[in-house]
Amino acid sequence: MKVSRRALLGGAAAVASASVLTRSPRAQAQSKSTRADVVVVGAGYAGLAAAWQLHKAGLKVVVLEARDRVGGRVWSIDLKGGGWLDLGGQWLGATQDRFAALIQEMGCQTYPTPNFGDTLYRGVTSSGYYRVKADGSNWESVPGSDLIDEADEKLSAMVDQIDPKAPWQHPQAAIWDGLTFGQWLDQNVPDANARRFLIASVSYACASPQEISMLQLLFIIRACGGLAMLDGFEGAAQQDRIIGGAQVVAKRLAERLGSRIQFNQPVRKIRWSDRGVTVFTDQQAIAAQSVVIAVPPTLAGSIEYEPSLPTDRAQITQRWPQGCVIKVGMVFEEPFWRKDGLSGASIDYGSLVGETADSSTPPEYSKQGILTGFVYAETARQVLRLSASDRRQQLLASLQGRFGDRILKPVFYQEMNWAMQPWTKGCYAGYLAPGATYLFKSAVRDPIGPLHWAGTETASQWPTFIDGAIRSGERAAQAIFSQR
Amino acid sequence: MKVSRRALLGGAAAVASASVLTRSPRAQAQSKSTRADVVVVGAGYAGLAAAWQLHKAGLKVVVLEARDRVGGRVWSIDLKGGGWLDLGGQWLGATQDRFAALIQEMGCQTYPTPNFGDTLYRGVTSSGYYRVKADGSNWESVPGSDLIDEADEKLSAMVDQIDPKAPWQHPQAAIWDGLTFGQWLDQNVPDANARRFLIASVSYACASPQEISMLQLLFIIRACGGLAMLDGFEGAAQQDRIIGGAQVVAKRLAERLGSRIQFNQPVRKIRWSDRGVTVFTDQQAIAAQSVVIAVPPTLAGSIEYEPSLPTDRAQITQRWPQGCVIKVGMVFEEPFWRKDGLSGASIDYGSLVGETADSSTPPEYSKQGILTGFVYAETARQVLRLSASDRRQQLLASLQGRFGDRILKPVFYQEMNWAMQPWTKGCYAGYLAPGATYLFKSAVRDPIGPLHWAGTETASQWPTFIDGAIRSGERAAQAIFSQR
Repeated sequence: MKVSRRALLGGAAAVASASVLTRSPRAQAQSKSTRADVVVVGAGYAGLAAAWQLHKAGLKVVVLEARDRVGGRVWSIDLKGGGWLDLGGQWLGATQDRFAALIQEMGCQTYPTPNFGDTLYRGVTSSGYYRVKADGSNWESVPGSDLIDEADEKLSAMVDQIDPKAPWQHPQAAIWDGLTFGQWLDQNVPDANARRFLIASVSYACASPQEISMLQLLFIIRACGGLAMLDGFEGAAQQDRIIGGAQVVAKRLAERLGSRIQFNQPVRKIRWSDRGVTVFTDQQAIAAQSVVIAVPPTLAGSIEYEPSLPTDRAQITQRWPQGCVIKVGMVFEEPFWRKDGLSGASIDYGSLVGETADSSTPPEYSKQGILTGFVYAETARQVLRLSASDRRQQLLASLQGRFGDRILKPVFYQEMNWAMQPWTKGCYAGYLAPGATYLFKSAVRDPIGPLHWAGTETASQWPTFIDGAIRSGERAAQAIFSQR
Repeated sequence: MKVSRRALLGGAAAVASASVLTRSPRAQAQSKSTRADVVVVGAGYAGLAAAWQLHKAGLKVVVLEARDRVGGRVWSIDLKGGGWLDLGGQWLGATQDRFAALIQEMGCQTYPTPNFGDTLYRGVTSSGYYRVKADGSNWESVPGSDLIDEADEKLSAMVDQIDPKAPWQHPQAAIWDGLTFGQWLDQNVPDANARRFLIASVSYACASPQEISMLQLLFIIRACGGLAMLDGFEGAAQQDRIIGGAQVVAKRLAERLGSRIQFNQPVRKIRWSDRGVTVFTDQQAIAAQSVVIAVPPTLAGSIEYEPSLPTDRAQITQRWPQGCVIKVGMVFEEPFWRKDGLSGASIDYGSLVGETADSSTPPEYSKQGILTGFVYAETARQVLRLSASDRRQQLLASLQGRFGDRILKPVFYQEMNWAMQPWTKGCYAGYLAPGATYLFKSAVRDPIGPLHWAGTETASQWPTFIDGAIRSGERAAQAIFSQR
């Protein structure tokens, strides 16, 4: 035998013998080495929430962030004419208690999402736009709305059956995870408008209907409280916004953590055993008892682990792609749509910009009007193949029928494509590919020795949202406390 | 504006302005820097084939390999009692002309795969094993074989319609890519034996039926010449073996490339623009005109790219997981099954070890008998959760009904689980998740400026095989020649 059987198998024996906490030749070449109780990888909301709990409990924490800022896929920029623009996550929803608590703890303020008027709706088979009142009271008069509601109920009836903590335990889990949402729609929703409306359900995953299984989609909807909770403003997921932008809370938290957060430190490798970890960046090696890996699953899988992760974990992150969405920020001198009695919210899934929402700041911060547009999944990937100027022209033109010619001349225009942000790789979040929810079960979040997984994708409540990220970080911190 | 719009968009403007070929602070910290015409990432068969063509054309090539050996997922070890064991790819098939040519060019020898006797077959509904002659002449007398043949023909009729160079162009591509193989089986193959037999079709992808789409499966089967070509020995995919093991050809090639191959050099980052690339490992930065990235797609996606890859490429590797299979090598004092008129080949998809094959070396190298067993996809992941000793006991016990008590006492026993090899992450190969074949189309292999993609997964002929790897490397080399 010319090779070690241990090296081939990489099993329990290899784990036990790994020389963790001794310095490797590679570590020796690095310029510095420190010790911590816990290393947190990633300073998005999941990582910050974990670090904050650990720090408050008196543990020595080091947070390693690949970027030069905190917040991850939450990023707020100040606008020239006053106010701010959220390039990523921006809402605080009803029942998002952990985000609400953190906002309060950090002394930040919220305001109700502007929703002053009618929502515009156009079906894929209708010629023009219908005005739907904010309270939905005239929805029934929209032609075809009964068929949409019927399809919605059909989907919701399945959603209600799912245990968000263990979707793989549903009696139909094996079947539903091998059934794509596209197939289910073809078989269950004959009406074109209803089908297109329901496809918006996958906008939470930013996936195309062929890419996501029923089981994963039902899980996401269920874990966020159902379709009505996901879709609405007041009393629902888009209820409030944060003064200064959604990143402000993360910035405040970062101030308190201070130099415990290190920037421009992509983690390349984690050496681990039952006795602890050593986390390697290009410049340093940090030894610790535990690590919280709080980055999107695909990026967690991109780190080198020595020894290898067990098979389930090594493979699940390969089946957990990030979605795709372009968030379009359009700034105008004023929220001109309000004069026409429009809320700025619109739904036209037959167009490039399927949804819009009013993202203006309160008037005391800026008189400017801000409209946010969303371009999802395959539609996003298609327009991303265009030149930047062609794309801008086409996206704005797709809104002209809704908001008139003024929409064509924003004073500021900003597309955000998170798929090309190397430390996110796609938004809103990762979703499990068909089969993986059922086949990999709790590997989605089970710790492995000193390795703990966080990130909104691992949450069983409000996954894909900031609140889910915070919950996941707090869960990881609790698991570390219970190991001590 | 506090942030650069270029940094947000990451589009063409960012590419044009990236300071490629100038040294970054990070590069300056590294101990050495060199120049090459082409850097090849990965010294598996794809990378070696690319490097060999480029080198023969007079280009300066540097091959960076993460491991301490060449061959990638082809790895041969010498056995104590003589002969060798292939832990990964091991066969040369009919029509695998590029592998055959390389074998000849390197002066290596082949021998026909041993197949001296009857194959054992048991259906999931049959109580015992049937002996099927090597020429298949008595297959029709096996109960239920007509239903298996019928299902096989149904699948083959779809396979024949696929263009292996562009499976996304089939009129039904959108539908078939949103239909999992599991769903198709449920709807089209009522017989349990036939269904289980056809599930073996996904063994080429080492996927569970819920995980893979019809379109991707049909592509793989078509690109390898059809089910009969994939399944057989003589005149088919498992026709010949290589004297000394399948890695020997790679080793010979490595000898000729000499110091152009550098080991223990995981590539962490590639900076690129239209003017060239800089490839970073932990120790060095190498500037070149082009790079061939010849590693499994999921690992190609794990490298940091600066600037980001375009959206399609940044996202396709997130939808391209490696399969899962355990290859079990069992060595005995002699190939005792031959005395019973058995070939060593067996099929029992209701058992843990679904397939076996005789992998003995010619008697002049060793008198030992070598049997190879395959444990696929979800079955593999399930037994990998057991302890090593329990797993060995259960896997051997599952063969007892086929080969008697002698199978329980191998003189050497070796499991190979490539999912826990950090520089492969799963075998035989990567497959595109549902939706991705249709949605991402030629992004599967399109070069991006100076970035070229190789690896058996990118081949349109013999993907998942060594031959496909070689073809992909030679294609990448040709693309570089045509750019010069």
